[in-house]
Amino acid sequence: METKEYEDKITPRATDFSDWYLDIIRVADLAENSPVRGSMVIKPYGYAIWENVQKFLDNEFKKVDVQNAYFPLLIPKSFLEKEAEHVEGFAKECAVVTHHRLEEKDGKLVPAGELEEPYVIRPTSETIIYDAFSKWVRSYRDLPLLINQWANVVRWEMRTRPFLRTTEFLWQEGHTAHATKIEAEDEAILMAGVYKKLIEEELAISIVSGKKTDSEKFAGADYTITLEALMQDGKALQTCTSHMLGQNFSKSFDVSFLDEKQEKQFAWTTSWGLSTRIIGALIMSHSDDKGLVLPPRIAPIQVVIIPIFVSEEDKINVMNKVAEIEKTLKENNIRLKIDKREGRPGFKYFEWEKKGVPLRIEIGPKDIANKSVVAVDRISGNKEFIKEEELLNFVTNKLKDIQDKLFENSKNFRLENTRETDLYEEFKNLLESKKGFVYSYLCEDPKCEEKIKEETMATARCIPFDQDIKTGECIFCKKEGNKKVFFAKAY
Amino acid sequence: METKEYEDKITPRATDFSDWYLDIIRVADLAENSPVRGSMVIKPYGYAIWENVQKFLDNEFKKVDVQNAYFPLLIPKSFLEKEAEHVEGFAKECAVVTHHRLEEKDGKLVPAGELEEPYVIRPTSETIIYDAFSKWVRSYRDLPLLINQWANVVRWEMRTRPFLRTTEFLWQEGHTAHATKIEAEDEAILMAGVYKKLIEEELAISIVSGKKTDSEKFAGADYTITLEALMQDGKALQTCTSHMLGQNFSKSFDVSFLDEKQEKQFAWTTSWGLSTRIIGALIMSHSDDKGLVLPPRIAPIQVVIIPIFVSEEDKINVMNKVAEIEKTLKENNIRLKIDKREGRPGFKYFEWEKKGVPLRIEIGPKDIANKSVVAVDRISGNKEFIKEEELLNFVTNKLKDIQDKLFENSKNFRLENTRETDLYEEFKNLLESKKGFVYSYLCEDPKCEEKIKEETMATARCIPFDQDIKTGECIFCKKEGNKKVFFAKAY
Repeated sequence: METKEYEDKITPRATDFSDWYLDIIRVADLAENSPVRGSMVIKPYGYAIWENVQKFLDNEFKKVDVQNAYFPLLIPKSFLEKEAEHVEGFAKECAVVTHHRLEEKDGKLVPAGELEEPYVIRPTSETIIYDAFSKWVRSYRDLPLLINQWANVVRWEMRTRPFLRTTEFLWQEGHTAHATKIEAEDEAILMAGVYKKLIEEELAISIVSGKKTDSEKFAGADYTITLEALMQDGKALQTCTSHMLGQNFSKSFDVSFLDEKQEKQFAWTTSWGLSTRIIGALIMSHSDDKGLVLPPRIAPIQVVIIPIFVSEEDKINVMNKVAEIEKTLKENNIRLKIDKREGRPGFKYFEWEKKGVPLRIEIGPKDIANKSVVAVDRISGNKEFIKEEELLNFVTNKLKDIQDKLFENSKNFRLENTRETDLYEEFKNLLESKKGFVYSYLCEDPKCEEKIKEETMATARCIPFDQDIKTGECIFCKKEGNKKVFFAKAY
Repeated sequence: METKEYEDKITPRATDFSDWYLDIIRVADLAENSPVRGSMVIKPYGYAIWENVQKFLDNEFKKVDVQNAYFPLLIPKSFLEKEAEHVEGFAKECAVVTHHRLEEKDGKLVPAGELEEPYVIRPTSETIIYDAFSKWVRSYRDLPLLINQWANVVRWEMRTRPFLRTTEFLWQEGHTAHATKIEAEDEAILMAGVYKKLIEEELAISIVSGKKTDSEKFAGADYTITLEALMQDGKALQTCTSHMLGQNFSKSFDVSFLDEKQEKQFAWTTSWGLSTRIIGALIMSHSDDKGLVLPPRIAPIQVVIIPIFVSEEDKINVMNKVAEIEKTLKENNIRLKIDKREGRPGFKYFEWEKKGVPLRIEIGPKDIANKSVVAVDRISGNKEFIKEEELLNFVTNKLKDIQDKLFENSKNFRLENTRETDLYEEFKNLLESKKGFVYSYLCEDPKCEEKIKEETMATARCIPFDQDIKTGECIFCKKEGNKKVFFAKAY
């Protein structure tokens, strides 16, 4: 595409973080708005990141015996109504299908063929999947049942932002059924662990994890495990969740089985999901005022090579050398792009910088004469001259270093922006002035949490599993409580 | 799942082909009906076949520089209206979204929040994708633009059958834009070639290909290339299509560019798709009265091993040997399942036979003593004793043999069931008594085709590219024509 002046401009983070975020998505060519309210088009470069997320997760799921399947997009209205909390949570924002054709009337196409019972487009699939499970599960021998679905879902959100909150989004949703409560709890924890591996090791985003409070949990769950990250503006972001659904859905949809004593029992179920929202988290964790920054393990392109030449003779020499290097790097599974387009090298540097490619290699006639290449890394911008024979080693190590460095930065940022206090005034000040996490005691009374939200706009992000057994005074009401909670303003 | 007597029964093909088809889907556990009108649940074993189709195609697409992206599920009604033939083709059978929430009224949930303009759930995505292309394409340098999307689509079909015709189905749809007509035509042909490779080499289904007649082409295309297979009951099945869209959509959606002379031109576009319908074709091509038959290259499980033992001591020896063989076969990328469940071996043989696993290996104490195993192939049912050290070679060759044999059978069946005639009476008789393809001349007048359809229920399946330059008399009106056409009753 012809690039225009205005298209290249990136608002600095310090000026307006929210504008910066949209600018990064535009200049890195990840996604764009669509003519459909609140829905985006995920462009090839953005989708390639999602494909890498999918590949990693799908492989991890299969390792723990989860099988993929596919369930209908449309959910009968009556299904949504079966679980009281669930319908409460989702009825207010769903796309409703009421007709099955368009018909011409006075020269205009209007909906026709009204359905007896409307359908909603799945906002999540617990209801339709547990209805199927009720047929699949008869005996304890059929358990555990471990199913995942890669799908699109629709939630009619009022305020949307690309990747973070869109009317339609892509995700995977896992649904499992177990014979005992403990097995279901273990599964919910296991899958949160799989997500942690993706987010920390592949995406280089440091997270805190733990349970959601009752008022923040999934509509229909006994409890929800969440992985919370901290964005560069100090706001928290829920990256994904894993729910212990108890017997709530199995009782609503009769997912029951005969146990070893031939007695009827209801199954214990879990569900867990991660969506294209993770790409929003990825952008806001690492990118800078020059553009997108991608951790090498998830980057669609890990290394870009820019051939540099003026004369035809140089071109031949340079391209031969490039082909040689391409072969070596590809054989070592490095995801590589050769930018063979015509045009000034400076323009290309600028473009790949904006797209967050971790490592750039430049090869010109002088480099060939010196038997070396120039390498520039995206996060430091440092230029290094690398001997040809050391290139493969250099690239391998450099990519690993960048990955480690990004995770270290993310972890340091999270720790530096996590503060503890017992005083509500300080609590409020911290949330207002410093942002980040504030870590404080909270009692069991949901009213305290509600009041805090009203007064500070911050929400309880999670109750970590591993905390002291000490007790302390609730930050709001001063009653003694034993749970310490991460609070933050959040996306 | 507990198996019930009635669940195991397979209607013989000769008795009722249509019941047989549904029985195969049930006993092989591929899919089941859902509570959503005309939509199925694709169960893990059926979905695993689809995943193999996806993996193959996705890889082939990337080889020819096609990139994946994702576009909205919902299509504004006004978009559908922009291409006259297109809306004609799809308006009569689409799911219409008219509201964006459910609200309680008199104790019932009713649709609320009516939309100003309704959306339809995509029946295909030409309109929404070419709208995006109109923003992506500015200069001839932006072309060709080669995009694919993996997605679900909804068409409100009146008569549905699992895999073959469902309200919702999964597919991929490729959309490309080119600077010249010839490049677009080449692309449509190239992608038909990719499909042919999948269908013949992976799925072992022999096809004929060529253009659709004008009355059978895609709504909005200049012409459609189709790949037609013949099912075991002699009915034809359209496995997939590749469309040359000419400038129809680029003019409706203004996909235009400045050429090298800085003059505005409309792009030439193509679209091409293959859906979960292909699994219906796969089932009806190879399966028999004992159950599903799968070609090894697409089978989720290529080899199943059944350990056989009574005593605990035998169990240890057998399982050790099984683990050894598992290691060898897996290292050689053979997709393997060890059936470790308790239960009679005979029951297991029966189950894997129904599921179409190409090769079964049985290992018991006697086999260990003889340093051999028993192998039974799914299509011949022959039992062979294989020396342990020859096992890997045997398995590799046997899987290849089965693949070749299935394709050969499919090809022979198609050729045996393709008949030529110049006489309309014979034409009618053949279609009635023998089924299969009848290959005859057809003139350009669409009325002949229409009349033939009325009188015989058969449709023009395709006009092959490679045919004699001879002319002949139209099978219906006897006017001289130069195109020979495959006719058949079809799915």
